[in-house]
Amino acid sequence: MLIVQKYGGSSVANADKIVNVAKRITNTFKKGNKVVVVLSAQGDVTDELLAKAAEINHEASKRELDMLLSTGEQQSAALMAIAIHKEGYPAISLNASQVGIHATRKYGNARIKNIETERITAELERNNIVIVAGFQGVNRYGDITTLGRGASDTTAVALAAVLGAALCEIYTDVDGVYTADPRIVKNAKKIDVIGFDEMLHLASLGACVLHNRAVEMAQRYRVKLVLRSSLSDADGTLIKEESKVEKVYVSGLAVDKDIARVSVIGIFDRPGMAYQIFSLMAREKISIDLILQAINSNTTKDITFTVPKSDLKTTLSLLEANRSIIGFEALSYDDKVAKLSAVGAGMASNYGIASTMFEALYDCDVNIIMITTSEIKISVLIAECDADKAVNAVHEKYMQMSHFGTPNKL
Amino acid sequence: MLIVQKYGGSSVANADKIVNVAKRITNTFKKGNKVVVVLSAQGDVTDELLAKAAEINHEASKRELDMLLSTGEQQSAALMAIAIHKEGYPAISLNASQVGIHATRKYGNARIKNIETERITAELERNNIVIVAGFQGVNRYGDITTLGRGASDTTAVALAAVLGAALCEIYTDVDGVYTADPRIVKNAKKIDVIGFDEMLHLASLGACVLHNRAVEMAQRYRVKLVLRSSLSDADGTLIKEESKVEKVYVSGLAVDKDIARVSVIGIFDRPGMAYQIFSLMAREKISIDLILQAINSNTTKDITFTVPKSDLKTTLSLLEANRSIIGFEALSYDDKVAKLSAVGAGMASNYGIASTMFEALYDCDVNIIMITTSEIKISVLIAECDADKAVNAVHEKYMQMSHFGTPNKL
Repeated sequence: MLIVQKYGGSSVANADKIVNVAKRITNTFKKGNKVVVVLSAQGDVTDELLAKAAEINHEASKRELDMLLSTGEQQSAALMAIAIHKEGYPAISLNASQVGIHATRKYGNARIKNIETERITAELERNNIVIVAGFQGVNRYGDITTLGRGASDTTAVALAAVLGAALCEIYTDVDGVYTADPRIVKNAKKIDVIGFDEMLHLASLGACVLHNRAVEMAQRYRVKLVLRSSLSDADGTLIKEESKVEKVYVSGLAVDKDIARVSVIGIFDRPGMAYQIFSLMAREKISIDLILQAINSNTTKDITFTVPKSDLKTTLSLLEANRSIIGFEALSYDDKVAKLSAVGAGMASNYGIASTMFEALYDCDVNIIMITTSEIKISVLIAECDADKAVNAVHEKYMQMSHFGTPNKL
Repeated sequence: MLIVQKYGGSSVANADKIVNVAKRITNTFKKGNKVVVVLSAQGDVTDELLAKAAEINHEASKRELDMLLSTGEQQSAALMAIAIHKEGYPAISLNASQVGIHATRKYGNARIKNIETERITAELERNNIVIVAGFQGVNRYGDITTLGRGASDTTAVALAAVLGAALCEIYTDVDGVYTADPRIVKNAKKIDVIGFDEMLHLASLGACVLHNRAVEMAQRYRVKLVLRSSLSDADGTLIKEESKVEKVYVSGLAVDKDIARVSVIGIFDRPGMAYQIFSLMAREKISIDLILQAINSNTTKDITFTVPKSDLKTTLSLLEANRSIIGFEALSYDDKVAKLSAVGAGMASNYGIASTMFEALYDCDVNIIMITTSEIKISVLIAECDADKAVNAVHEKYMQMSHFGTPNKL
């Protein structure tokens, strides 16, 4: 069968690790599978390249950064082909232009539009293991665009989708999805099976084990996705379509510290104000989360929301530049916040889960700044310095209350 | 006017040097010129990438090495565009695939077949400074092939030719072509103007200041070529078509230590033996130099020749593998040899130049292993350990005898 495997930067950080991964790949190949491999740049290569650019120009153009950064994945791919040859197996490396990974023109954060399959299929038919440089595409001008940090996952899922792969394996340095970050919560348990929706929420909520768009794309194209460790033979976590279950608990907890709170204070209370603010953000592709609107008086209201920390500066200057149009009194912000979220299919029908969270936070003296809920998640905004304490307290409480699900039954 | 500039790896080795080169480029641009820049990989990047590959596999495939190495030039090009933007000028980097630099399929040592001009012309019309990754092309399969070490010079000359540039400036860390290597010969003088043929001989004889194929191509397409230092504003050396001159002396001396002597001993003396041996080498694209044939007896002869050191192993095993066909008695070789050459247009008509060289070598007790002469050069093969002493002695003698030419009059 055709298997797509993706290995992250830490899995290919040096020669020994590349050789280790080459052995894994050839083991899969030896069993009679066709194998397509997607690689990230080695270890810190991307950061080193960014530092090189920053040393020259702090505001380097995104087009040129994409030209620069995309070389990291091409290097990994070539080195892996070289390692597989050493193992005695046929392999060929291809970059985005050679494969034909067509992406939108937004440099630094492009989306894959379509992928040509001719070259990869031809190489698979020549019995080659095909190594594809992740994280990159080419736009209609033939220019290289990158797909955003961590987007090699997306490259892998997209390839699995267009090639009709039986399985897409994402290898990282963790052996699966956990009920909470095991570096912070000691008792965190590995999840064997999780639904796409829950995984999507965990990923977007800062669990960081899998790129968000990769999960969305896997769900849309029904790609069977497995998250596994490149260092062990453990089974990992299978991510798949939810089956109907009667009773679902919490799947996991996620903490996102990479956010900032922005409050627009004293907006005149008439229709269209929220639209005006958020369309500004949308135009700059700034993703907004946790929106809260409070009415102060009969005539003004405040709107508070969170944005990624990296977008805070842009957000504030956008709002300032449009102050006269929006007509607000003041802006306030806080970039020392964190979002703690509990995710689980069907949680909406069990608000005990929310109250248990609030109780745990109260018990450990953590103040809640904002709350939002959806059908499968509860998120609270808290002070960043409280985050580790909070996630441990909530995890402990959910364990006591047997709130963590039995996702094997999904 | 349109100027093509090429900067070598040492000229862009770090952020400061890149910024320095960016200023040179924008100075040319500010004067109203259109500028196309060709760059090598930064400093030791190519060697570092080769070391990475060798750590994994000592016999890495040439296709994959080309995928790997070509990233070095792409990085330089992107970083230079970023530096030029910082200076406040428009620039765009392009790799071989984006430009359309079509090359033969021989990985590691491909030749440029043709270059598309549409993209570069369009970018120049948008008033961009165009930065092209040197050293690389794409073959008919869309795969990357590199053009051999030092071949960014060739990329620059080829671009100058197809774009009809008024001038092609090759910037290095030396300020021109010298009568001998100034690191070895203290009294070496800079040459202001030199003919293509002589330059070609100096380059291929190990003077190493300019890539051989670049000079050939400049001659064929009548590209005006200047070799200059990226660190000073000195005039450099102009390389151009020879004009007819009455009296020509020696242009310069070159030493090539990267060669090995191979002797095929006791070959049966019948027609076609030399062809048999050298066609073997030709098939592997091993370049042969200094061929000498001696007759031992009525029935056998010896053939001695030199090859690049890197081809010695292949040469010996090729000969061994074909021993029964060629029918020789023994092979001998020596990789501790050097070739000392004197080059000058019209030297053929002045054999005083040869005898002066032999006298200088005799005076300093250097044994001559082989001698060859052509219309514009005399080469002697000597022991590698004698090379520095020999070039100094010959240079000194030529100075005394006023044998060095007055190339300004070319």
